Amino acid sequence: MRTSIATVSLSGSLTEKLTAAARAGFDGVEIFENDLLASPLAPEEVRARCADLGLTIDLYQPMRDIEAVPADEFARNLRRARAKFTLMNRLGADTVLVCSSVSPLAADDDALAAEQLARLADLAQDFGVRVAYEALAWGRHVSTYDHAWRIVEAAGHPALGTCLDSFHILSRGSDPKSIEDIPGEKIFFLQLADAPLPAMDVLQWSRHHRRFPGQGGFDVAGLLRHVLRAGYDGPLSLEVFNDVFRQAEAGPTAVDARRSLLVLQEEVGLGALPAPVVPTGVAFAELVTPDAEPVTSLLGALGFARTARHRGKPVELWERGEARVLVNTGSAALPRRRSGGGTPVDGTCLAAVGLESPDPVGAARRAEALLAPVLPRRRAAEDAPLDAVAAPDGTALFLCATNRPRLPDWRGDFVDLPGVTAPRDGVRIDHLSLTQPWHHFDEAVLFHRAVLGLDAQESVDVADPYGLLRSRAVSTADGAVRIPLTVGAAPGDDTAHARHIALATPDVVAAARRFTEAGGHLLPIPANYYDDLAARHEFADGELATYRELGILYDRDAHGVFRHCYTRTVGRVFFELVQRDGGYQGYGAVNAPVRLAAQHAPR
Amino acid sequence: MRTSIATVSLSGSLTEKLTAAARAGFDGVEIFENDLLASPLAPEEVRARCADLGLTIDLYQPMRDIEAVPADEFARNLRRARAKFTLMNRLGADTVLVCSSVSPLAADDDALAAEQLARLADLAQDFGVRVAYEALAWGRHVSTYDHAWRIVEAAGHPALGTCLDSFHILSRGSDPKSIEDIPGEKIFFLQLADAPLPAMDVLQWSRHHRRFPGQGGFDVAGLLRHVLRAGYDGPLSLEVFNDVFRQAEAGPTAVDARRSLLVLQEEVGLGALPAPVVPTGVAFAELVTPDAEPVTSLLGALGFARTARHRGKPVELWERGEARVLVNTGSAALPRRRSGGGTPVDGTCLAAVGLESPDPVGAARRAEALLAPVLPRRRAAEDAPLDAVAAPDGTALFLCATNRPRLPDWRGDFVDLPGVTAPRDGVRIDHLSLTQPWHHFDEAVLFHRAVLGLDAQESVDVADPYGLLRSRAVSTADGAVRIPLTVGAAPGDDTAHARHIALATPDVVAAARRFTEAGGHLLPIPANYYDDLAARHEFADGELATYRELGILYDRDAHGVFRHCYTRTVGRVFFELVQRDGGYQGYGAVNAPVRLAAQHAPR
Repeated sequence: MRTSIATVSLSGSLTEKLTAAARAGFDGVEIFENDLLASPLAPEEVRARCADLGLTIDLYQPMRDIEAVPADEFARNLRRARAKFTLMNRLGADTVLVCSSVSPLAADDDALAAEQLARLADLAQDFGVRVAYEALAWGRHVSTYDHAWRIVEAAGHPALGTCLDSFHILSRGSDPKSIEDIPGEKIFFLQLADAPLPAMDVLQWSRHHRRFPGQGGFDVAGLLRHVLRAGYDGPLSLEVFNDVFRQAEAGPTAVDARRSLLVLQEEVGLGALPAPVVPTGVAFAELVTPDAEPVTSLLGALGFARTARHRGKPVELWERGEARVLVNTGSAALPRRRSGGGTPVDGTCLAAVGLESPDPVGAARRAEALLAPVLPRRRAAEDAPLDAVAAPDGTALFLCATNRPRLPDWRGDFVDLPGVTAPRDGVRIDHLSLTQPWHHFDEAVLFHRAVLGLDAQESVDVADPYGLLRSRAVSTADGAVRIPLTVGAAPGDDTAHARHIALATPDVVAAARRFTEAGGHLLPIPANYYDDLAARHEFADGELATYRELGILYDRDAHGVFRHCYTRTVGRVFFELVQRDGGYQGYGAVNAPVRLAAQHAPR
Repeated sequence: MRTSIATVSLSGSLTEKLTAAARAGFDGVEIFENDLLASPLAPEEVRARCADLGLTIDLYQPMRDIEAVPADEFARNLRRARAKFTLMNRLGADTVLVCSSVSPLAADDDALAAEQLARLADLAQDFGVRVAYEALAWGRHVSTYDHAWRIVEAAGHPALGTCLDSFHILSRGSDPKSIEDIPGEKIFFLQLADAPLPAMDVLQWSRHHRRFPGQGGFDVAGLLRHVLRAGYDGPLSLEVFNDVFRQAEAGPTAVDARRSLLVLQEEVGLGALPAPVVPTGVAFAELVTPDAEPVTSLLGALGFARTARHRGKPVELWERGEARVLVNTGSAALPRRRSGGGTPVDGTCLAAVGLESPDPVGAARRAEALLAPVLPRRRAAEDAPLDAVAAPDGTALFLCATNRPRLPDWRGDFVDLPGVTAPRDGVRIDHLSLTQPWHHFDEAVLFHRAVLGLDAQESVDVADPYGLLRSRAVSTADGAVRIPLTVGAAPGDDTAHARHIALATPDVVAAARRFTEAGGHLLPIPANYYDDLAARHEFADGELATYRELGILYDRDAHGVFRHCYTRTVGRVFFELVQRDGGYQGYGAVNAPVRLAAQHAPR
């Protein structure tokens, strides 16, 4: 029989995946939609590349949340499907995978599902496309292969069949015997995968995945309250079996562990810590670099002006609106981060963050009580006494009181450059994305939560072409401080990804234009991404063309809209321009795979 | 309240763990038994070290499978407990953790459990020790904290209390409210841990942990048979979401993927491959080294004689009994393996294995059909035509016909050295332990199973002080060929551990003595290990003293007994001397943590 492999099974760019599949002797591929969206190749080019390699495109996947929905939603789904069938014709792919819906809009109504799938198949037939309907093991109403088949049978459409996936069937413990009752020609596709069994029992969970209190999902504080009420007065002891901690350096893990107990004790009313002092904004981001030229020309193109210099150190202040960036060329400040393999990493990096604090001394006191190293001030006698602590990843966090009477002001250490004024245009730092070392991701989240009083959002997985990333943002309730923390899927990845500074602007299109006119280069985004945007959303005339021209990415949530674009990377830092409208709360995570693929693409 | 941390929560040697705990400000520690067994420090020295660091030893753990067992078993348990209480007196630890039994010998009899725990507490009291009984979430009959407490209450012994562990309580979804009904003074200890929730749902399982067919636990072949009977004739397509494959180089992953389909097709009777040719023994192990001296003096001390040299290459043959080792100083043969961080690794390494094959040509044909690269022969015209294929990790597998008429014999390429005979004493290669690169462990198992027709044993986790290892042996049914494959818990670990050659001898004590008398150095094993052996097993007079003197490790299974010891490491290779008696089937995995800790210990 012919053999095929889904592109999602392999690492790298779409081109690398196709080459690897062909060299290993596969006859065809399934193209995973995200791999196409992130590819700079046009669909026709992908088709030609496959033909050259002797590969057929056996499946395009996946189409989601199509069936058993209200009429207006289904109309939108058909519009989206039409765009995808057009794309499949360009690709030369004749079968599309439709997964059973997980949408809350889907009704538990097999007749409606069959009717809408038949209408989808009608449309597909016009394009010479076959629709293969598959039961996801976690489908909302349809989660077993025999159920999916009953719906396909009821629809009775020649262009509609079923797709069987060994994972979805066997992971549910379904008996595969009844597959024999399905006519072979109605099995449009077969996907094969194995998986370890059992995936995770309580023993494995216990032995490999425990965390320190506050780093998981248990209500450990609630349990502790009951134990205290019982009258227990022995030690609070941590017993944490964890594969990662087994490898991590013992010293930082022990500090992490004790901080978790301090937070837990505070939570249940045992022992008093200095109260949290929540920061009210970002005072500055500090870049350390051995060569200021590349980063200062980038800042120039971004509309920053060099407004001041430190009176005693090789540090310059660059400003635009309320955004401030320090550029430090002092060699003593240059951190030597090490990758998993022990290679020292140099180049421009985001090494320190200044946070506006209503009470810098109080904030530093809490940090110190929670075992954050207080950094030596290394300052001249006349400098403002700036409090700073080290985050677990070594980033210096300065606790600042900018332009506030009666508090020492770091700005006073800088001498204004004559005749320069920063543009006053409402630009500010929206967020600072800080990649974390592999071993201490959960520690970093707990640190920012407990020490700085920030709230942690849900953790999200982001697919980089060369591995999964995990990202979790910490922020203040009003969004004045937002810090997404990101970590790779394995050690060694901790330095594979640059950090970045996102600048909020009221008009990202204008800001992007000004940047390119000033000689800046925005990260190019593949055309396939915009074709998909067009299938998903409706835009005003010319709007999408503008995004496509500039490389602006787009997302919506329940609150509003997010538009964003990226500069090229300098050393280990890049910038993002963002426009948040209508209370959008996220960071465009849905676009991250496309952005990451573009950053990996050869220039 | 006082704070404490279990040594199992931290990485490294016991000394490193204690130091880290003290520096982070913990008041005490729980000492995990395996950490003590692997430590060169005597219990009194551990006690003194803790005192110097300002740490108390709050708990010794764990004691397992004590209660609700038949009388003779309980007598053995009391004997073991007496030894541990003596040890605890030496340590200065006054509380011991007893986990609810998981033994098949345990009866579902709370009264018996209470009675036996009370007798244990009687004994403990004589030593000034308290017993804290804890319900493991996966205990055989006792798995909830309230059940454990009812048994403790029924026992009514002052030296018996309960230990609460937030993981075991919350992972089962138990309501912690009833903890308040336990008198505080009967809660002898509290262990805290958090964990991510949900541990693993089917969505996570599907998105992160799929494998290629034959690399997991599903009956994918069974499913495929049903699909074929239904009349399906489309492609067999692999859709595998896997975090590791997302990072691994696409080329080898694609080959791995297609091999899995070839094996699957053979299994269901689609497509014919050349039949497997199971090897019948190990012809030789080949060490490649830039400097032969250290390894040949080790071989000399092990009783090997240099018997021959290759007629055209810088390769020597060393023999003892039926064990043959080639020492290759040819620079072309020196592999440059790379660690995760990209650092080339040099030094002596186990680079090739000769396997006795009843049909070397047939075996090579199957290997080639299953996409194993056939290695270029690079030989002189007069050399025997030796077939060789590369395993996924790059190890060359030579398919040999030693001393068999009508088949080309590699031995014929070697010229005997005059006047040298190898000792004829029944020594043979018992097993070859091959560490694997991180990305392709499951691939390696499938390769050895499918290509060589070996059987795969269960996978076992082994705790190295600096991370968990996973080990899975492949072997012939008769044990003539045994290859444990081992991989670290993270990339970069692939080169952290040396490979080794285990030599089977009928008398390991004599072999060990001869080795040390010849100037060899055996790996020193901590005295704590032998104290524990004495608590677990009964030995003949002087037997244990001999093991202790030489550093011989001991294990038993249902079939027989295993005794083994290790040489020091040369480059990236060491040797093991083993004695298998009574059909023992394993590799002494229970002793691996002690051996690994000893290998990490500073010399």
